This record gives sequence, C-alpha cells and structure tokens, in this order.
Amino acid sequence: MKLLEERIRKDGVILDGGNVLKVDAFLNHQMDVALFGAMADEWKRLFADEKITKILTIEASGIGMACIAAERFGVPVIFAKKSKTRNLSGEFYTTKVESFTHGTVNDVIVSKRFLGPEDRVLIIDDFLANGAALEGLIDLVHQAGATVAGAGIAIEKAFQPGGGRIRAAGVRVESLARIASMTEDGITFC
Amino acid sequence: MKLLEERIRKDGVILDGGNVLKVDAFLNHQMDVALFGAMADEWKRLFADEKITKILTIEASGIGMACIAAERFGVPVIFAKKSKTRNLSGEFYTTKVESFTHGTVNDVIVSKRFLGPEDRVLIIDDFLANGAALEGLIDLVHQAGATVAGAGIAIEKAFQPGGGRIRAAGVRVESLARIASMTEDGITFC
Repeated sequence: MKLLEERIRKDGVILDGGNVLKVDAFLNHQMDVALFGAMADEWKRLFADEKITKILTIEASGIGMACIAAERFGVPVIFAKKSKTRNLSGEFYTTKVESFTHGTVNDVIVSKRFLGPEDRVLIIDDFLANGAALEGLIDLVHQAGATVAGAGIAIEKAFQPGGGRIRAAGVRVESLARIASMTEDGITFC
Repeated sequence: MKLLEERIRKDGVILDGGNVLKVDAFLNHQMDVALFGAMADEWKRLFADEKITKILTIEASGIGMACIAAERFGVPVIFAKKSKTRNLSGEFYTTKVESFTHGTVNDVIVSKRFLGPEDRVLIIDDFLANGAALEGLIDLVHQAGATVAGAGIAIEKAFQPGGGRIRAAGVRVESLARIASMTEDGITFC
C-alpha cells in the first residue's frame, strides 16, 4: 500500500543499526486515524468475501486500527489482554506470547464469552516480525473452535521469519507494507 | 446518553456488592464500534466549538473510543503509555497514576514531540471514578503548556469523588453515563 510505505519513509525512524523501526509519530503512540481509515478500506477490499464476524487484536497498539477497520466490516472488536493474574476460573482462552523487544513472556487472554465456533475472525495488528503475537492470537481463535479468516497487518518485517512461517501454515496474511530490508541509510519495501 | 445507559443496564454486570461494574461485553474487552460511533457523535456535538487539535487517552481501553472520536474531530489521537522503564532521555512528559483496581502506581508518559503549547486537547477515557487517570492526563497536558479543552468520559461513577474534584478545578467533564448508585440489584443514573 503506497500511502503507508510513503508515510513510513517520511515519518518512520530507523534506529539501532536497522533493527528498530520507530513509527510512533503516526501508528503506535500518536495515531493518524485518517491513515487508519485508508488502511481499513484496503483490508475491507482484501477480505470483503470472507464473511468476517469478529476482529481480534492485542493490546495496546493494535486497538486503534482494529476499531477503525471494524467500522468498515460492521463487526465488534475483541482485544486480547496481557494478563497479570492466573486464570483460575476457566473463563478465558489463554496463550503465551514472547516479546522479543522486551524479553518477556506474557499470558494473553480472551474471554470465552466472545469467541465461539460460529465466528470467522480477522486478526489485525500493527507489526509482524517474529510472529509470536500473531501465532498467539491464532491459537486463541483455534481454542475457541472459530475460523481464522486471515490476518491484516500494517507493517511486516519480511526479513524476519514470522510471516513466512504463518503463511506456510495456511493462514492468509495481508500486510500493507512489507519491509525487505532496512538500515540507518534507508528502507526497501518488497 | 440514553443509548449508553440502556446498554449498561442490558449488558453490564455488577459485581462485588456494587463496587465493580463489568462492561467487557461492549466497552473494554469486546468493543461495540457502532456504540462508539454514537458516543463519538455526542462528544463531537458537545465539544464542537472547542477547536480541538489532539485527542489524548491512556492505554489500553480508552484507545478504541478515542480513535472513533478522532475521526469525527479530524485530529490525531495520542495514547499515554504505562512505562516500565525510567525516562532517562528527557524526551517524555511523565506523571504517576495510581490504579485503585490493581493497587499499583504506574509512570505514564507522552512523547514531547506530540503535544505543545499550540494544542487544545480533548481527553477521552472509558471510566471516571477516583479521577487518578484523568488527573494524570491533565497533568501531562499542562506539562506540555497545552490547553485542556475538556474531558469526554464514557461512564462516570458519580458517587466517587473524581468527577466533582476535577470539575471544581475548572475542567469541563462530559460523561455520557453518570452512575448515581449501584448495587447487585440494579443501577441508578443521575
């Protein structure tokens, strides 16, 4: 998606010798909801025939774009929560997600009341790199007996293994900007 | 706002002898973006003349409604982040917010790049009770030298002191549902 690629070139900041792409000016701290609208239109076009019933994302930075997308699809959003407490009551689907950025593992939960076998779920998230968050969300959908209709990602670091592994597992992944390589001198899209 | 009050009566769950209102079916876990649209229309009507330049919220459950509201106002959203790391670089406005629910105190931060003296800020959040989160957000706006144009709250527990104290300090607070009292038998709105 040209609009997003141009915005990344204009306002993204590459740090740490090409390991970190900072997009906090428009995506995950300050959020440009007009850009989110254009991204939502594109996901709606791509997944128009998938009979989506729910959008699933994970807190916190996926929530904004998921909500704008949900307006286009006319469905609710569920955001998976990073839980500090153990699930004693059995009322949640639970999975573990490793954060490579923070070096931590979080329990991530979704209430069983909001996902079931009848659901066709579109997963939305801001980044796809190692794939840990997306695989966790896919696991939650599968625990519910629901169908993963696909994943809509804003920015995929295509030089990291997550996207390839998840597509090879049969999940349709549509990333609006796919980064082939980045250094502090610049960025190349696929 | 009748629509929100009716939804709270229908899908809200009162727990712990009237101390906890659970609205995870439509507001802060599963999110009804059509309801958020109606709430956004109401905030837009209320703050139409305030020349809002930015919407500020706090992660995670305020983000969705803030983004839908931001579409109506045609401005960006900033979400304040709960920080795990100390601000060594001076690039953030920082405040402390006590969570009465979790019994914790978080450092809450906003990048200095995204708020400045020219900004007129509408603060959006899902709940107002003791007022700690809202006062933290107001403090961040003041640190930036920006103007707090007002606060749009979804649900105010009017029997707790936050709303009264913040209005007495001169901030315009518009809560779409104001709860006068609640017990496990039912709920009364102001």
